[in-house]
Amino acid sequence: MNKIRIGIVGYGNLGRGVEAAVGRQPDMELIGVFSRRSGLTTNSGVATYTMDQLADFQGKIDVMVLCGGSATDLIEQTPEVVKYFNVIDSFDTHARIPEHFDNVKKAALASGKAGLISCGWDPGMFSLQRVYGESVLPHGESYTFWGRGVSQGHSDAIRRIKGVVDARQYTVPKKEIIDAIRNGETPEVTATSSHDRECYVVVEDGADKAAIEKEIKTMPNYFEGYHTTVNFISQEELDANHKGIPHGGFVIRSGETTEGTKHIYEFSLQLDSNPEFTGSVLTAFARGLYRLASHGGRGAFTVFDIPPAWLSPKTEEELRAHYL
Amino acid sequence: MNKIRIGIVGYGNLGRGVEAAVGRQPDMELIGVFSRRSGLTTNSGVATYTMDQLADFQGKIDVMVLCGGSATDLIEQTPEVVKYFNVIDSFDTHARIPEHFDNVKKAALASGKAGLISCGWDPGMFSLQRVYGESVLPHGESYTFWGRGVSQGHSDAIRRIKGVVDARQYTVPKKEIIDAIRNGETPEVTATSSHDRECYVVVEDGADKAAIEKEIKTMPNYFEGYHTTVNFISQEELDANHKGIPHGGFVIRSGETTEGTKHIYEFSLQLDSNPEFTGSVLTAFARGLYRLASHGGRGAFTVFDIPPAWLSPKTEEELRAHYL
Repeated sequence: MNKIRIGIVGYGNLGRGVEAAVGRQPDMELIGVFSRRSGLTTNSGVATYTMDQLADFQGKIDVMVLCGGSATDLIEQTPEVVKYFNVIDSFDTHARIPEHFDNVKKAALASGKAGLISCGWDPGMFSLQRVYGESVLPHGESYTFWGRGVSQGHSDAIRRIKGVVDARQYTVPKKEIIDAIRNGETPEVTATSSHDRECYVVVEDGADKAAIEKEIKTMPNYFEGYHTTVNFISQEELDANHKGIPHGGFVIRSGETTEGTKHIYEFSLQLDSNPEFTGSVLTAFARGLYRLASHGGRGAFTVFDIPPAWLSPKTEEELRAHYL
Repeated sequence: MNKIRIGIVGYGNLGRGVEAAVGRQPDMELIGVFSRRSGLTTNSGVATYTMDQLADFQGKIDVMVLCGGSATDLIEQTPEVVKYFNVIDSFDTHARIPEHFDNVKKAALASGKAGLISCGWDPGMFSLQRVYGESVLPHGESYTFWGRGVSQGHSDAIRRIKGVVDARQYTVPKKEIIDAIRNGETPEVTATSSHDRECYVVVEDGADKAAIEKEIKTMPNYFEGYHTTVNFISQEELDANHKGIPHGGFVIRSGETTEGTKHIYEFSLQLDSNPEFTGSVLTAFARGLYRLASHGGRGAFTVFDIPPAWLSPKTEEELRAHYL
């Protein structure tokens, strides 16, 4: 069997996650890593190329996995790269998904390629669970909780405060709300009411901790309205206990089938490394996209369009015999 | 929009579950219930017909949902009914799934119809989670736990013992094993080692309770090897506290992406009524099968073959805008 030939564009945490995931798939081969930076060394030793060499690989790579950031890179990169390759990305700027989809679709239909956008765990695996859960339980309420996990955006926001040296912010879902839903209650919740924010902050010597704590807790869009706790710790403690990038969360559908007959549909992820798991999801869906394209799929797609069988390296006979 | 026209074959608990589920879907219409028995009254008031009237409904029903038992009914009924209609069933005799699939495929290809087999929650929703979980985390271990819930087969087995008037058996997964897996351990488990069996038994006046308890606990295939508890109760208590048909369970994938970087993927269901939820899953997949057939799908299929988008009554634009 010919292996599925994968390329990676962008070599940050996510790119390295995809690299590790491809190495653990039996039917895939990593051809190269493409980056704006030259002279990169990769973990697996796979060759690296610059972005202007991309077009030389037409016909030599089956799926290009785009590992840049949504706001800055993917919005332009995905419609560009799909001119030459089937592509998959993890675009997660929610409000711009319809626009991004349309751009990728237009370019992909023109080039005869397939592009799958917004793949990872949320958007991605969580999105799938929201659709399955609501389809099988049309009368009910859906809930998504994120965490306990590191929010890179919130950590960065704290680091921009004067006097702060380093910081890590954990988003923490409220267990009592999750437990109430598991018990059949259907509370009205908002992101603010259902999550707490836990901050670990390293400050300069002599910094005004009270002022910094106040600035964090009242920061609009990021912390205002949340129950936030701020813990001042040393750089050593932060390095020792808070260097990982764990994340996870819950999708719960609570529904009734007849009056008073309730069902709880729950999905959860508990991830040691957000980018490594996201990279693994992208890699499985790269296989799905490859098969979709092999079946004649052209244009733009999402995780909702891929039959689950196409994600697995197993044959359909094996899946029916051992997974049904 | 024309509604999807549904027929139900078989009117036990599962048939009534499908009837209730169809009534809660915005884009479906229940045309009739078909049964070997005549003179049935339905909960929804929908018309009933006998099995020999089935063929008269060709062209008037889009998907026929088969609600008989696997061993006795479906193995013959599904390949027969697919001669006239697209069909979906909940065939769950695991060892015979490949044979059943081949029979349905042959008949469906001959008639130009589509048949989807083995749909419900296990096989069904749990099967999907096993495939998604292993596809995104190829290195790891998969676990399935059933319960806490009523096993109809085990309850029936107890009722066949001399002196027993009525009985209800609950399958109970061992919480300490689930907790160990959630903590990243990957224990070796078997169905016997990971589940307990809890029995509520009503006996005749003067029955030998000790002998009955011993007969239950040593019953081969059903109870032997399990940690089983037997509680003798009155018929009144059984009727008051054990008349429901709750079930549920867990699918957990525990996997690594790089050495020591662990991820826990967990899915669980907690169901007040096993047949009502199974009926709801069948109904959502009846929509998926209808769309598959509308796209030219012919032959036999499983839940693995249906793109998730096709299960939802929402448009693909709505799904991308609100569920991704």
